[in-house]
Amino acid sequence: MAKPAKHKRKRKHYSLPVAGSSPGLVYIDEHSLKPVITFHSYNDHHYAVKELDNIENLSRILANKEFNYWIEIKGFNSVAMFETLNSDFGISKLVLEDITRTYQRPKLEEYGKYDFAISRMLHFDEHKNLDNEQVSFILMENALFTLQEGYEDCLEPIRNRLRVGKGNIRIAGSSYLMYALMDIIIDTYFEILGAWGDELDLIEDRLFDKPDRTVMFDTQIVKRNLINMRRVVWPERDKLNDILRSDSLLIPDQTKMYIRDAYDHCIQIIDIVESLKEISASNIDMYLSIISNRMNEIMKVLTIISSIFIPLTFIAGIYGMNFAIEDPVTGKVLPQNMPELYQEHGYLYTMLVMAAIAVLQILYFWRKGWFK
Amino acid sequence: MAKPAKHKRKRKHYSLPVAGSSPGLVYIDEHSLKPVITFHSYNDHHYAVKELDNIENLSRILANKEFNYWIEIKGFNSVAMFETLNSDFGISKLVLEDITRTYQRPKLEEYGKYDFAISRMLHFDEHKNLDNEQVSFILMENALFTLQEGYEDCLEPIRNRLRVGKGNIRIAGSSYLMYALMDIIIDTYFEILGAWGDELDLIEDRLFDKPDRTVMFDTQIVKRNLINMRRVVWPERDKLNDILRSDSLLIPDQTKMYIRDAYDHCIQIIDIVESLKEISASNIDMYLSIISNRMNEIMKVLTIISSIFIPLTFIAGIYGMNFAIEDPVTGKVLPQNMPELYQEHGYLYTMLVMAAIAVLQILYFWRKGWFK
Amino acid sequence: MAKPAKHKRKRKHYSLPVAGSSPGLVYIDEHSLKPVITFHSYNDHHYAVKELDNIENLSRILANKEFNYWIEIKGFNSVAMFETLNSDFGISKLVLEDITRTYQRPKLEEYGKYDFAISRMLHFDEHKNLDNEQVSFILMENALFTLQEGYEDCLEPIRNRLRVGKGNIRIAGSSYLMYALMDIIIDTYFEILGAWGDELDLIEDRLFDKPDRTVMFDTQIVKRNLINMRRVVWPERDKLNDILRSDSLLIPDQTKMYIRDAYDHCIQIIDIVESLKEISASNIDMYLSIISNRMNEIMKVLTIISSIFIPLTFIAGIYGMNFAIEDPVTGKVLPQNMPELYQEHGYLYTMLVMAAIAVLQILYFWRKGWFK
Amino acid sequence: MAKPAKHKRKRKHYSLPVAGSSPGLVYIDEHSLKPVITFHSYNDHHYAVKELDNIENLSRILANKEFNYWIEIKGFNSVAMFETLNSDFGISKLVLEDITRTYQRPKLEEYGKYDFAISRMLHFDEHKNLDNEQVSFILMENALFTLQEGYEDCLEPIRNRLRVGKGNIRIAGSSYLMYALMDIIIDTYFEILGAWGDELDLIEDRLFDKPDRTVMFDTQIVKRNLINMRRVVWPERDKLNDILRSDSLLIPDQTKMYIRDAYDHCIQIIDIVESLKEISASNIDMYLSIISNRMNEIMKVLTIISSIFIPLTFIAGIYGMNFAIEDPVTGKVLPQNMPELYQEHGYLYTMLVMAAIAVLQILYFWRKGWFK
Amino acid sequence: MAKPAKHKRKRKHYSLPVAGSSPGLVYIDEHSLKPVITFHSYNDHHYAVKELDNIENLSRILANKEFNYWIEIKGFNSVAMFETLNSDFGISKLVLEDITRTYQRPKLEEYGKYDFAISRMLHFDEHKNLDNEQVSFILMENALFTLQEGYEDCLEPIRNRLRVGKGNIRIAGSSYLMYALMDIIIDTYFEILGAWGDELDLIEDRLFDKPDRTVMFDTQIVKRNLINMRRVVWPERDKLNDILRSDSLLIPDQTKMYIRDAYDHCIQIIDIVESLKEISASNIDMYLSIISNRMNEIMKVLTIISSIFIPLTFIAGIYGMNFAIEDPVTGKVLPQNMPELYQEHGYLYTMLVMAAIAVLQILYFWRKGWFK
Repeated sequence: MAKPAKHKRKRKHYSLPVAGSSPGLVYIDEHSLKPVITFHSYNDHHYAVKELDNIENLSRILANKEFNYWIEIKGFNSVAMFETLNSDFGISKLVLEDITRTYQRPKLEEYGKYDFAISRMLHFDEHKNLDNEQVSFILMENALFTLQEGYEDCLEPIRNRLRVGKGNIRIAGSSYLMYALMDIIIDTYFEILGAWGDELDLIEDRLFDKPDRTVMFDTQIVKRNLINMRRVVWPERDKLNDILRSDSLLIPDQTKMYIRDAYDHCIQIIDIVESLKEISASNIDMYLSIISNRMNEIMKVLTIISSIFIPLTFIAGIYGMNFAIEDPVTGKVLPQNMPELYQEHGYLYTMLVMAAIAVLQILYFWRKGWFK
Repeated sequence: MAKPAKHKRKRKHYSLPVAGSSPGLVYIDEHSLKPVITFHSYNDHHYAVKELDNIENLSRILANKEFNYWIEIKGFNSVAMFETLNSDFGISKLVLEDITRTYQRPKLEEYGKYDFAISRMLHFDEHKNLDNEQVSFILMENALFTLQEGYEDCLEPIRNRLRVGKGNIRIAGSSYLMYALMDIIIDTYFEILGAWGDELDLIEDRLFDKPDRTVMFDTQIVKRNLINMRRVVWPERDKLNDILRSDSLLIPDQTKMYIRDAYDHCIQIIDIVESLKEISASNIDMYLSIISNRMNEIMKVLTIISSIFIPLTFIAGIYGMNFAIEDPVTGKVLPQNMPELYQEHGYLYTMLVMAAIAVLQILYFWRKGWFK
Repeated sequence: MAKPAKHKRKRKHYSLPVAGSSPGLVYIDEHSLKPVITFHSYNDHHYAVKELDNIENLSRILANKEFNYWIEIKGFNSVAMFETLNSDFGISKLVLEDITRTYQRPKLEEYGKYDFAISRMLHFDEHKNLDNEQVSFILMENALFTLQEGYEDCLEPIRNRLRVGKGNIRIAGSSYLMYALMDIIIDTYFEILGAWGDELDLIEDRLFDKPDRTVMFDTQIVKRNLINMRRVVWPERDKLNDILRSDSLLIPDQTKMYIRDAYDHCIQIIDIVESLKEISASNIDMYLSIISNRMNEIMKVLTIISSIFIPLTFIAGIYGMNFAIEDPVTGKVLPQNMPELYQEHGYLYTMLVMAAIAVLQILYFWRKGWFK
Repeated sequence: MAKPAKHKRKRKHYSLPVAGSSPGLVYIDEHSLKPVITFHSYNDHHYAVKELDNIENLSRILANKEFNYWIEIKGFNSVAMFETLNSDFGISKLVLEDITRTYQRPKLEEYGKYDFAISRMLHFDEHKNLDNEQVSFILMENALFTLQEGYEDCLEPIRNRLRVGKGNIRIAGSSYLMYALMDIIIDTYFEILGAWGDELDLIEDRLFDKPDRTVMFDTQIVKRNLINMRRVVWPERDKLNDILRSDSLLIPDQTKMYIRDAYDHCIQIIDIVESLKEISASNIDMYLSIISNRMNEIMKVLTIISSIFIPLTFIAGIYGMNFAIEDPVTGKVLPQNMPELYQEHGYLYTMLVMAAIAVLQILYFWRKGWFK
Repeated sequence: MAKPAKHKRKRKHYSLPVAGSSPGLVYIDEHSLKPVITFHSYNDHHYAVKELDNIENLSRILANKEFNYWIEIKGFNSVAMFETLNSDFGISKLVLEDITRTYQRPKLEEYGKYDFAISRMLHFDEHKNLDNEQVSFILMENALFTLQEGYEDCLEPIRNRLRVGKGNIRIAGSSYLMYALMDIIIDTYFEILGAWGDELDLIEDRLFDKPDRTVMFDTQIVKRNLINMRRVVWPERDKLNDILRSDSLLIPDQTKMYIRDAYDHCIQIIDIVESLKEISASNIDMYLSIISNRMNEIMKVLTIISSIFIPLTFIAGIYGMNFAIEDPVTGKVLPQNMPELYQEHGYLYTMLVMAAIAVLQILYFWRKGWFK
């Protein structure tokens, strides 16, 4: 049996808080990336984008309510930046801690002047594991900050829509932009689930064609990914529900109508996750029953062959015994010892008896249905 | 063992939203069908039906409150049609998106001027899989739009009742017509569940008569269908409950009394789905225990035959050894070597010993109950 | 192994609504029985019972508020009767549909002038399956209608109590009579569960004494019955709870005190059902572990005997080889060929070696604990 | 394998109501015990106890509000006594029925003048089954009745505290006494669970030391006891919660503070029950995996020995064939027939080949890790 | 197969209440430790710590509201101390009982003048079991008592923060200190779960590399620890929620903002516990499927070798039979007896037949895929 290629799973290290540290402490990992800040300003008939070095003067710019702003921050390696967020924009230290400790569940927190939300962006890494990055949102009256640890994302289509200005996106305010970003993140869940659904289908095909132990291993990997997905989707649903029932002035009813749509998507994703989990469970059940069946088949072959030939071999053994009809030393004749051996057709009769035994056994096994 | 015919399952492709597309975008698949529009107008003493080419002038016709109208739209391949729905009837773009993305769960949404609802129509395709089509309802004061992607449906009995005018159907308004359509869709669930119940019964019979691995495969297929069914029925129940508790003016209390009835049916269907799921689980349990039992039987045969004949063969082997009573070269007599072979009744005694061993073993196995 | 007697399970045909039929349609099966109508009139000091041919003039009789009335209707084969119920007593067509489609769950519906309730009467048919008949109640101010499809019931004790006039039954009004009937139906559930509990106990005894595959089959049958029972008892509980919280004038608080008692019984039944389900699951677990154990035992016998005798047979085979110490044709002496055969005690030594091997193996298996 | 001692389980007969009997009927079993009535009167500085023959004059005594009273009734064989309870103390017949039908779940019922509560007292009978007796409480202003069917109980410590007068017990009124009794009953659950926890630990030790099938049987017995325990503890929790939220004047807030404590204990018991259930499930899983492992070990022994010796025996069989190098009858020389037998070192070479085959196989199995 | 080192699990003795003892009784185990009392007084610009011998004069000191106080009590072996808590600080006896009976679940109780809370501090003992110690909190206006049975804890970082005075800890009052302590206790749960997660990863690696039965044992140990962890975390979550919704004046809204943070952590821990439980379950599933696979492999080896050689041995046995072509005594020629033996190429042909049979069987097994 082929040994499955050693499965080098990337460990999912839960980014643990340092026990006993002050709450509200911004946590900058030594390996964290230099911040890249992209600044979008837009309104109905205007759109501009530029890279910023820092966010020092940003609060002044944002005071111009003529435009809406989207400030994308990627990479956290700047304590100064977080201090500016705290001093210039009044972002609570607890929020900054949640942003930098990137193991938070999706949630919404309202702080009056701004709303804070977290989404989790999922995508496959090169080992087909679910990579799971945190995107934090700070929603203000006419500005939206998004913060994430790494540089890669799946938000390009939104930037395109902003640039092109198609649809509502440049008209409907910052909360709509936040919705659009959250919605695209949820939409990628569909793609991921689609990939897993396909993989489960392929595994199922292998179950029918040539089931081997990789079926088990691969199903377990999908199942584990589904477990992780579920840990993301349920709080996502709660978050969207919190937004729907929020009375924050920052999220107008018009945006909520769209959020309702995202909420529906989220419910559908939960549905699909649960269905796929049941399908993996049923794949595993199938596999185990196939193994049992195969064992039965193996044992049948062994039993049929052994049962037929062991008795025959015994008979052959009997007539292979050396009981003497004549004592070679004394020459005494022993006529009772194996006279069959000296019958004219002894050999023939023996062969016929053997054939009869074999035929009877084959008939017995046939009737038991072992040849089917 | 017969190999199960390769199971060509039609993949259930989750019709995925294109991540990042604008919400409210009508989504027309390139393979979607040309719309066929059937226009019914009826009241107490009148009924007419005709095919329409488009819905351009419809809003003017519907202004005549003397009649009730049912507009059936099948096939979505006309962007113009959806634009008319938006412009002439004020149907929200989000609703139109839900209509065209046909992977929605059953739901009710109230928009004041109209109510929007989704049902899912299930029927078997030619591979005995559950085909699962979306029927969208737009309920207005004196009109009901139904929209579906494909041409086939199970609504003919309702058209007949409209034509014949029996019962309440021509009197009780558009909401009653919507109820009647939803109810017939739910009623077909009963038929589908009945078919699966029968299939599980047949599988159970096979379990008793000649269980083979197709039992497992077939049960799993039913189980998977039940999982899909459940994904439809639970939100259906929620939808009906929403209708019951809705205070929309479009759904009068009299209709709600009937909806209550459909709701009861839906609960019954959930009951049956859960029972059938338990029955499939118990079929699988039975099958696995039967496999184990069968293995036991196979092993018993092997063990009985091997245990009896292997020792006997050994004894035969002993007396097949060539220890010489006389050295053929030197002629030296070796009287200790296998004197049994030169006993007068050596052969007979040996056979008796063998028979005794066999009988003792058979007794042993008999007492262990292995022959039962 | 004994083959279990073919299990002729009576199919549980879900009495399906005809998809698309008008709601409120009385559904009379062609095989349904001729109605038998028993009319009880009673009060504190009076009791009379008679058979009626029809219910034409009943509404006039019932106007006499001096008495309470119980009208038992068994067998539905009379459309006229149902029409009278509708015209004379104002029973809604939806209620009549529910009465005649006898697959309803227990429920309570209040219609102001009357209350409508459904109980399910369970009893064993001759194949030990759970037969499950619907009893419908129409409760009016001073009258109670009970309607059921078949002629057999378990209500005789109530008729006796009415006749004898013991206890509250002739004093406390129609709602108390309805309670008494519902309560006796629930009490028979206890009897049924007692029978299944006993059967599970017997099955458990067989598990300890001589477990065979019928253990599995019989447990599954009980389990399936429990699943069906649960489908009845949970809605029954809800129904009783609805009655308790109902503010219908037809059910006075005094009756509710008794209903509370029936509700407690119902909870107890749910408790017992769940316990019995857990017990059947544990029986199945036990059975599977017993099968595995038995397999282990079988394999041990095979392994011990094979492991001991196969090597011995090999040794015997060695000395059964015909390597010649002298070429019979050329007469050349080959002293290296199997000189053991020409040793004075070769045979003895060989037998001792064999015995030693057997003893060592037996010791090895002993230490492994295979003889325990 | 040792056969487990036949397990004579005492049947748990659900004491069934007689279907159709009047509600409120006191049910006296013919085997029930003669009542033993113990009468305690106490206050802050006084305590007296005596046996009563009947409760005829009790209501007069209880009118003296200077003292608190505890009336213990054990054994129900006196209809007169229950009638006195009804006539002198106004205890409802439904309550008396619940007292005498001793299969009730724990519950609280408030009747204004008195409160009625049920606890279930658990203790082991001599077969280590959970014996499960009902204790009924009737709480009045200055008196508490406790009623139980059998003579044995676990309430002695409370009687001691009453006698000694330590703590609150003689000061805090009848409701406190009821609390103390309920609390001690719950405390014995801890002892029982402790015993089961220890038994599960012992079973687990046996799993590691010498797992045999009694592991399975014993775990199942504990599991079944846990199932029964759970059926007692959940309603007990509900009962205590009902007491906490009750606004009965008979249960002052001060007592409720203590009841809150008992409630916490009850939650802890539920916790422990659930944990022990998970531990039994994991014991069973372990046992099944051990059986599978053992089977693997058995099969490995068989396979190693068979695989090594069967081919060798075949080779020996080859050279045991009697193909003649010279026709004994015609004397014709057949030099092609088994010339190996007449080689000078034929025997040696054969043995070497056999040894080589054996070594190769041992190496193969070694590499497969079968000797570990 | 290597036997797992005997697993000496430390029993988890549930510290049982003595049934029937008075409630509110301080319970001092004879082995309990001498109390060690550490007294911290601090405010914004001051911090002092000293060891106290007793708490006699403490209430006087605490009257000075200029400072906040933290009184750490470790070791309970002093009844006098608890009496002082009762007399000087008005701590209820029920609270003192809960403090000394250290098997309580996490909870919050409000007593107006003070709040009482329990956390459970988890850490590994030397046998890698989860040690589970109770920490009790008594929160007063400007003082916090913490009480625990043993001397070891994980609170050192908090003492450091107090000493250093960094962050809010010396400013934000006693409730913030209580939060900080509870939070650090929860943070250690992350560390513990991290360790278990790593262990499950290692076990999973062993599953792929060399799965043996210790996989099962080790997974079960982790699983059992997770069960215990869950029994701690769920009530911890409830406790934190109670604090959040409490209207106690002792816990200002500012502290609640932090408690909200701890609550989020607690939810995350529950998430991780559930995920790890699913992972252990899937490890066990994998292990069982690996055992089954291995059994299949073992049986395949046995079946291939037996099936090939048993028939060959039979053929060899045939030609090892001694049917004579000439009666050695009478000299009668028996030409029908095994003439093959006297064919010129009989031996060669036989060997070819044998080879053909072997090749055919190998092909058969090859096609069945048994060599893969």
